Amino acid sequence: MGIRFLTAGESHGPALSCIVEGLPAGLPISIEQINHDLYRRQTGYGAGARMKIERDTVQITGGIVNGVTIGAPVGMLVENLDWKNWQNKITPPQTIPRPGHADLAGATKYDLSDLRMVGERASARETAMRVAAGSLARQLLAQFNISVGSYVTEIGGEIAELATIPYEERFARAEASDVRVYDEASAEKIRQRIYAIMQQKETGGGVIETVALNLPVGLGSHVHWDRKLDGRLAQALMSIHSVKGVEIGNAFENARKLGTQAQDEIFLSPLPEGEGQGVRVTRDTNRAGGLEGGITNGEPLVIRAAFKPIATTLTPTHSIDVTTREPAMMIYQRSDLVHIPRACVITEAMVCLVLADAMLEKFGGDSLREMQAHFHAWNPTLPEMR
Amino acid sequence: MGIRFLTAGESHGPALSCIVEGLPAGLPISIEQINHDLYRRQTGYGAGARMKIERDTVQITGGIVNGVTIGAPVGMLVENLDWKNWQNKITPPQTIPRPGHADLAGATKYDLSDLRMVGERASARETAMRVAAGSLARQLLAQFNISVGSYVTEIGGEIAELATIPYEERFARAEASDVRVYDEASAEKIRQRIYAIMQQKETGGGVIETVALNLPVGLGSHVHWDRKLDGRLAQALMSIHSVKGVEIGNAFENARKLGTQAQDEIFLSPLPEGEGQGVRVTRDTNRAGGLEGGITNGEPLVIRAAFKPIATTLTPTHSIDVTTREPAMMIYQRSDLVHIPRACVITEAMVCLVLADAMLEKFGGDSLREMQAHFHAWNPTLPEMR
Amino acid sequence: MGIRFLTAGESHGPALSCIVEGLPAGLPISIEQINHDLYRRQTGYGAGARMKIERDTVQITGGIVNGVTIGAPVGMLVENLDWKNWQNKITPPQTIPRPGHADLAGATKYDLSDLRMVGERASARETAMRVAAGSLARQLLAQFNISVGSYVTEIGGEIAELATIPYEERFARAEASDVRVYDEASAEKIRQRIYAIMQQKETGGGVIETVALNLPVGLGSHVHWDRKLDGRLAQALMSIHSVKGVEIGNAFENARKLGTQAQDEIFLSPLPEGEGQGVRVTRDTNRAGGLEGGITNGEPLVIRAAFKPIATTLTPTHSIDVTTREPAMMIYQRSDLVHIPRACVITEAMVCLVLADAMLEKFGGDSLREMQAHFHAWNPTLPEMR
Amino acid sequence: MGIRFLTAGESHGPALSCIVEGLPAGLPISIEQINHDLYRRQTGYGAGARMKIERDTVQITGGIVNGVTIGAPVGMLVENLDWKNWQNKITPPQTIPRPGHADLAGATKYDLSDLRMVGERASARETAMRVAAGSLARQLLAQFNISVGSYVTEIGGEIAELATIPYEERFARAEASDVRVYDEASAEKIRQRIYAIMQQKETGGGVIETVALNLPVGLGSHVHWDRKLDGRLAQALMSIHSVKGVEIGNAFENARKLGTQAQDEIFLSPLPEGEGQGVRVTRDTNRAGGLEGGITNGEPLVIRAAFKPIATTLTPTHSIDVTTREPAMMIYQRSDLVHIPRACVITEAMVCLVLADAMLEKFGGDSLREMQAHFHAWNPTLPEMR
Repeated sequence: MGIRFLTAGESHGPALSCIVEGLPAGLPISIEQINHDLYRRQTGYGAGARMKIERDTVQITGGIVNGVTIGAPVGMLVENLDWKNWQNKITPPQTIPRPGHADLAGATKYDLSDLRMVGERASARETAMRVAAGSLARQLLAQFNISVGSYVTEIGGEIAELATIPYEERFARAEASDVRVYDEASAEKIRQRIYAIMQQKETGGGVIETVALNLPVGLGSHVHWDRKLDGRLAQALMSIHSVKGVEIGNAFENARKLGTQAQDEIFLSPLPEGEGQGVRVTRDTNRAGGLEGGITNGEPLVIRAAFKPIATTLTPTHSIDVTTREPAMMIYQRSDLVHIPRACVITEAMVCLVLADAMLEKFGGDSLREMQAHFHAWNPTLPEMR
Repeated sequence: MGIRFLTAGESHGPALSCIVEGLPAGLPISIEQINHDLYRRQTGYGAGARMKIERDTVQITGGIVNGVTIGAPVGMLVENLDWKNWQNKITPPQTIPRPGHADLAGATKYDLSDLRMVGERASARETAMRVAAGSLARQLLAQFNISVGSYVTEIGGEIAELATIPYEERFARAEASDVRVYDEASAEKIRQRIYAIMQQKETGGGVIETVALNLPVGLGSHVHWDRKLDGRLAQALMSIHSVKGVEIGNAFENARKLGTQAQDEIFLSPLPEGEGQGVRVTRDTNRAGGLEGGITNGEPLVIRAAFKPIATTLTPTHSIDVTTREPAMMIYQRSDLVHIPRACVITEAMVCLVLADAMLEKFGGDSLREMQAHFHAWNPTLPEMR
Repeated sequence: MGIRFLTAGESHGPALSCIVEGLPAGLPISIEQINHDLYRRQTGYGAGARMKIERDTVQITGGIVNGVTIGAPVGMLVENLDWKNWQNKITPPQTIPRPGHADLAGATKYDLSDLRMVGERASARETAMRVAAGSLARQLLAQFNISVGSYVTEIGGEIAELATIPYEERFARAEASDVRVYDEASAEKIRQRIYAIMQQKETGGGVIETVALNLPVGLGSHVHWDRKLDGRLAQALMSIHSVKGVEIGNAFENARKLGTQAQDEIFLSPLPEGEGQGVRVTRDTNRAGGLEGGITNGEPLVIRAAFKPIATTLTPTHSIDVTTREPAMMIYQRSDLVHIPRACVITEAMVCLVLADAMLEKFGGDSLREMQAHFHAWNPTLPEMR
Repeated sequence: MGIRFLTAGESHGPALSCIVEGLPAGLPISIEQINHDLYRRQTGYGAGARMKIERDTVQITGGIVNGVTIGAPVGMLVENLDWKNWQNKITPPQTIPRPGHADLAGATKYDLSDLRMVGERASARETAMRVAAGSLARQLLAQFNISVGSYVTEIGGEIAELATIPYEERFARAEASDVRVYDEASAEKIRQRIYAIMQQKETGGGVIETVALNLPVGLGSHVHWDRKLDGRLAQALMSIHSVKGVEIGNAFENARKLGTQAQDEIFLSPLPEGEGQGVRVTRDTNRAGGLEGGITNGEPLVIRAAFKPIATTLTPTHSIDVTTREPAMMIYQRSDLVHIPRACVITEAMVCLVLADAMLEKFGGDSLREMQAHFHAWNPTLPEMR
């Protein structure tokens, strides 16, 4: 059954919650690391006012005893500190849908006459629980030396330089940047672009590249459409608020190349020193983004997500009042202006969840020790000949 | 449970087969239409030699009696006419993986020493069954006046003009074009580009835009990540062979716009003549590609898929021999050169399957008549006020 | 996707929690009714000491606003009041598995050296969240006039009289009985049997009959094994702690009858007064327990579950110490003595969850009003001839 | 994702088919063994006329090359030899539902005016594909030394002696018996009972006990309701045609015992000679039927299914004509009289499928060799102390 998770909670409700089912027992979990990931979701240049109101911290309600998983579902809770402020407010129903938001389609679907009932759940606040769940998955992956990081590649049309330095260094530099851009000159330009967007009472979109390192060969599969890892990753990323496009590697650019220029030739190299005699596969390029036939091929997994600008702008746009059935201008609600830097940790979380699920699918194991025993018992990088 | 389907069969095995479970009873099925969709998959400028060998036709093995579904799973079979030719051939094992193909990762994963065992299933021949399954879904959607079409927007870097003519006309013109490009001048340029690619012993990729018309408001949902229709569509398209990128509307372009320029303002218009008094929602743009918050909003659903060029090129690339563990050059196998025109029907099929599933989820119904009764009993386009 | 739910939480952890995903919007939810069901789970003759410690009450953390569902997942939390007492206790690891409990197999599976880590989650305390989830489902079913009740038919070998009075009356009388037996004379005998069992420092099992009334014809299906409603109900009931047998109607008895004596003949009666002209199907018997071919047939759904006695007895049994690898006697832990009366509400909860899921599958609908519109638009009791 | 399978096909349609997805690569498959299981489904005292018409044989349409799985979905087909005879027959629509059969509820649900459209799919003929799928699962289990067998314990109220001889011997003797009863004196009595039932133009039900040997400790789980192996087995068996009751071990009898008499005490014994120093767990009883807390505990898994007599009797029963809305007597259709002996292989098949899925869940592995490497790397029978 792999890893399943459900999240609940509204933006101004009492709490967000999450249950993650399927983690192996014996996995040490650092609450600090979850809280650190939650913190990362709350910071970044361009974030809105809410981020200053509250600092999310997770409570574990089940599944972890003395800092270690016991095989049981993990229950997590993040209280909405803001809730008390809202509880006694009398808020008139929202009747003007924000174009680009779930408001209108959601209220029509769910027969809701107060559009706020849509936005409360459609809000990206929900992603706090995805980040918490993703942090559990990340801590499982770390036990197999797999790491997942990300950086911003463009915002508001300003495109960052992507120098080919090691990914770990990209992650570290992006982490140190308030716009999560690893090239410093680019970061400054993007910061200025964000500033200009905010000055214009506008919002801005962008692109995030998420990368997973040290994956074993063989996650995902070519044998059935819904086993392909690229499809599962695409769903996971596309399901993030305001993401409307996903590509593995530079897919849209690659679609314009000739066949021989769009693949990654296969070479052999001696094993690294200390790993004995023998050869390993190497590539000079990674156009496939680490996936061939929907299967990890041992190269870094690279996946890019395109975020549209947030729909809630200070500059009003045309809409309607669903009560009066008359034209009306959108009314601003507190929101981010440029959310791309903050969103990095969300893409990482979703990638971690998909990868942890794929790891369990391939290696099985009810405890971390069993999973590791399986992992070490069989993990080839080249097919064996018989 | 919605619609589930499994496909089986290898490229040179006896047959491809498919079981589609979950269709309502009482749905008339035209076998000719399935065969027509199968035929569409086999034609188009740039197709390889295999397409000339055999013309796929479907056999129904269950679930349809006297041309109508009975609620039972539908079994379908397409024989590989080519199989007899292959059965008595002695083919030495394939030991040189094709870069960009599932060969190497697949054989490593599944412990296969003959790489052919990967390619047999990883072959796009499998999509014949997706097309057959998709044709069933298409015939269900048609009962609700929903249609799904597609056209090529670029091949090998040659980008087509996309004049804003009605979608039905785009579909019809693309259908009449051997490169499935609806603008005639563009079609000619793209034909020449394909010819040049083939002359160079290369392969070419491209982009297909798939569109669904007349969808009700409210398919998909914002309430949980895996209910979002954009995510489900993204997985479905990304799972197609050689697709590496997916976007809803022009997502990567939209990510560079300002917030007010990236949404679709909401307006009201009187109902069309003959539909009584009242108003309906209209938009001047469709940047969201018909989905807001992961929910259909009543506008055409527009989704684009980026295909990389096929990995099997007449021009050999560097690879290795997994037996000798020595460098080796890739060996050509019969394959398409430019597969984009043919692939249109595959994207349509996957979109049809996701949409039919979403229709059943929203409207329920065990028979077509029940589903239609549900559909007509409740299908608002604006939230009702109370 | 229907209704999905996950539960989390340990017996002596901070809280139990649950997320129920898939309920329609616009469903009024009575928290009192959930708490009443939780209370029913905590009462009954034969319950252990814990029941006196704490009275469970639910907190809603998401999905319900102003007492009504909004389509979003419902988050629920029940605090373990006992937790504070346990937090500072130093409890040595449990090393002696209780025969009949998950202790030994669970610790072996999950690589846990303190067997308490198994019992914490394997404890029937987890069923509190199933009851809370089931209460939501029950409240949905009630909107369609469907009710689910239950009564004890035997305990410790003492078998109750099952007079054929209307089910509603059986439910009401059982509810008023501390042993949940609807025949008063039988109730007294069973009470005495429980007393005797407790005096012997033993535990006792029994059988519960759960019944659903006013179901529409057509829930479940014959077309695929995993759509059969009897199978789905069987899994749901068998998954309850200490349930080891399930039968639809009196299946084990029916297996001994002749074919003509084991079915329910079909008759016609005029429609009840006020429902117009026409006929309806009637039966003189209900040996099928309301399911033919895995489909509801309009008769009461009757399902029986056999519970073994609880494994934790005051009378010690032979076991081993997993640390010393030596024989050891089981050590008593606080537990129920006869849990059957309390368990009624758990079987009801699981039946409600399966039925609510099947209702959504058949009728669809994103809001209660839509679901009801579907329900009333098409709900025949006899096939229509054409 | 484990093992998924879908079946299609009607009783008098062209063929039955099945796709089994999720088997590891490298598994040798004996077609003869599948055909032998299909043959077992067709034989047994009390079988109807159809069994003499055709002998089922399977065609593999995908997923197996040179007798070995390649990781791809396995496609299987069984032709209905009888089909040609039926194709040109003009059969008037069936309008009289058989009590106890899916006819009436199924036709109402699926809006079918010819009741035959229900029986065609609701027929137990569908189980031929479950047997074929189960045979694949059985061949996987055999690689881990796990075997699954069964025998009849009662028919038509005649109850067999169940001498406690080794299970392998029970299986072998039952296999040699035309009533699948392993005690010879009992077999004769049951044969006479079947004869008497047939003479009376009646049908008879019974009980089958299915047993799995050599299971590792730790399949299934206590941590979430839908992971419990007993629930998954219960669904699988209850989904078989005419099964209405399921119990793990002797659950209904056990429900009447005292707590200390209803569990299996835990003892230690030295390891068998040749397996080194150390101890293993032993039990003197197996009342739990091999499952504690929904987890395999290393003892034989014992599960019993109660079959009602087949609904189609030569002695007519009261029914109605759905066209005329008038009373009518049931009309006989060709059918088994006593199907219990034949049904043994079906219960085995479903148990094999559930167990193979649980094995993959625990051990993972994409190839048989990987799965075995995992299995041997970690498979304790007692928790390890740290």
